[in-house]
Amino acid sequence: MGPAVSEYPRDPKTKKKVCAFAEKIGELLAQRGAIVFTGGMDGVMELASRGAKNKNGITVGTPGRTRNISNKYIDIEVLTPIDVGDFIFAGILSCDTIITIPGGAGTLAEVCLAYRNKKPNVIIEGINPDYDKFINNYLDESKQIITYGAKTPVEAVKKAIELAKKNYE
Amino acid sequence: MGPAVSEYPRDPKTKKKVCAFAEKIGELLAQRGAIVFTGGMDGVMELASRGAKNKNGITVGTPGRTRNISNKYIDIEVLTPIDVGDFIFAGILSCDTIITIPGGAGTLAEVCLAYRNKKPNVIIEGINPDYDKFINNYLDESKQIITYGAKTPVEAVKKAIELAKKNYE
Amino acid sequence: MGPAVSEYPRDPKTKKKVCAFAEKIGELLAQRGAIVFTGGMDGVMELASRGAKNKNGITVGTPGRTRNISNKYIDIEVLTPIDVGDFIFAGILSCDTIITIPGGAGTLAEVCLAYRNKKPNVIIEGINPDYDKFINNYLDESKQIITYGAKTPVEAVKKAIELAKKNYE
Amino acid sequence: MGPAVSEYPRDPKTKKKVCAFAEKIGELLAQRGAIVFTGGMDGVMELASRGAKNKNGITVGTPGRTRNISNKYIDIEVLTPIDVGDFIFAGILSCDTIITIPGGAGTLAEVCLAYRNKKPNVIIEGINPDYDKFINNYLDESKQIITYGAKTPVEAVKKAIELAKKNYE
Repeated sequence: MGPAVSEYPRDPKTKKKVCAFAEKIGELLAQRGAIVFTGGMDGVMELASRGAKNKNGITVGTPGRTRNISNKYIDIEVLTPIDVGDFIFAGILSCDTIITIPGGAGTLAEVCLAYRNKKPNVIIEGINPDYDKFINNYLDESKQIITYGAKTPVEAVKKAIELAKKNYE
Repeated sequence: MGPAVSEYPRDPKTKKKVCAFAEKIGELLAQRGAIVFTGGMDGVMELASRGAKNKNGITVGTPGRTRNISNKYIDIEVLTPIDVGDFIFAGILSCDTIITIPGGAGTLAEVCLAYRNKKPNVIIEGINPDYDKFINNYLDESKQIITYGAKTPVEAVKKAIELAKKNYE
Repeated sequence: MGPAVSEYPRDPKTKKKVCAFAEKIGELLAQRGAIVFTGGMDGVMELASRGAKNKNGITVGTPGRTRNISNKYIDIEVLTPIDVGDFIFAGILSCDTIITIPGGAGTLAEVCLAYRNKKPNVIIEGINPDYDKFINNYLDESKQIITYGAKTPVEAVKKAIELAKKNYE
Repeated sequence: MGPAVSEYPRDPKTKKKVCAFAEKIGELLAQRGAIVFTGGMDGVMELASRGAKNKNGITVGTPGRTRNISNKYIDIEVLTPIDVGDFIFAGILSCDTIITIPGGAGTLAEVCLAYRNKKPNVIIEGINPDYDKFINNYLDESKQIITYGAKTPVEAVKKAIELAKKNYE
């Protein structure tokens, strides 16, 4: 479970889908034994963490510089002295794979930095057309790594774990 | 002079325009007495720095962790222990205003982080439609700061200095 | 469990003591339900983590920028893009309290940064006279926080947990 | 000109010496054409910068995250998103050599990190016995680099420039 911000899409139907997807992704990741890293704050970060805890998973949150600000589903709160975004630093490098639920400017920066760090990234399709265009593409001419897409939580988690495993072969 | 990467647009005509603009922007900034910060590497970073030196300006480069890798137009090389992008850290916060020549994923991350840090940003129009859509808009629902656009180096530098001055009033 | 480096004291008797203490501290912390953060590498970091796992504790390691370099007792490996020391960044801020087994220059930097971040710190006494003199003192005139000492693992863990709890009262 | 904090020694005679040394070191570095990096704040950082400007040198300050908080002798203010010490990040890596005027816990952390980054460091002798013992020694068993000492500003600048030049041979 990757980049996450507390902003929801304005459209209520899309918002409802995003929330359901976040929690389901957390559940599926925990069932597969993955440790679920998020920014540790509210919104989809909280829902994904709640999903993981529903299935007795382990959750890590990286909310910034301040102790005890993570949501109640976070087992391990990791702080960094860098305060330019919830997940950008400790999160991206620590994950073997990232699942992106499209969000605001912070999420977009995280997608870019994941790409620059060659971290596999699966974007949930159909939430935001600006993110959809990254799918099955390189983000720029430097061709670091292909960004993938998925239509459902099941597809996203399957693809993410497949990509993570590739690094260990 | 802000986010910069060594990637050029593939289209040769756009590339030529980008190069000419970068050098001219450096010249105009130096003539206005601005210190020119770039990532310190090649491409538009080098051209903007050369422009600044053409007019006896001061240039700062933030190329990453390794000493003496900046281009020859950099007066002051500032290193950081963080190696996730040329300009993202020491650059964005240090500038009073940013002029963005659209580039790759690193530049896009910088635009996002400038926005999150509420740094005024002037994007050169007509280089990349994905950047053009940020102009005169907020990047997301959190409405941090409007991103501006400019069609020419003269317009970009005028707008950038106007925005920088506002912070001091 | 706090700052840790893979350097041992040269004196074999002191080395033996340091190793036994590290593992025992890990055990006691886990028995008290504390999450054990270390740099995640070898030496006392590994021994403290092994101690925690002996008692079914949770262990977090912050070894730097590279995935899968932690020792085998680390449950959760957290990476940061900053590569100036194992534990300095994600570690110090994330802990509620720090137990320092005196080591090399990295450990000394961590003691200083813990102090500047006002993190409670319990130093194991009698390992290194340069660290002993910090005990029951401020590190400098800015008087951020008193640094404590302990002669045994039991005393160190008791004091550390007492100090951590104070922050929550 | 390296690590610097705004704390002075309590002893008035030592304080007077430290102040005079800081300004003189700034002057001598500027006369030798060196760019003078400090934390950019008050105390010896301000005096060293004033010294450099007395001789028309270039001064860089790295005061943390907030724009326009440097002293009036700083030409170029470089900010970083990391707020754990004035000089620790952008400063240490950017310098070719460091001159340390012994200070508080922040200065001590900088000495340790300079050592771990293998940056040549010349410590002013006779200010603080805890720093004097580093002189002509390695800071720990990892034997990264010898730390040097100097009794006067002239000696310190001479040694620092000699050490900096070695890296370019």
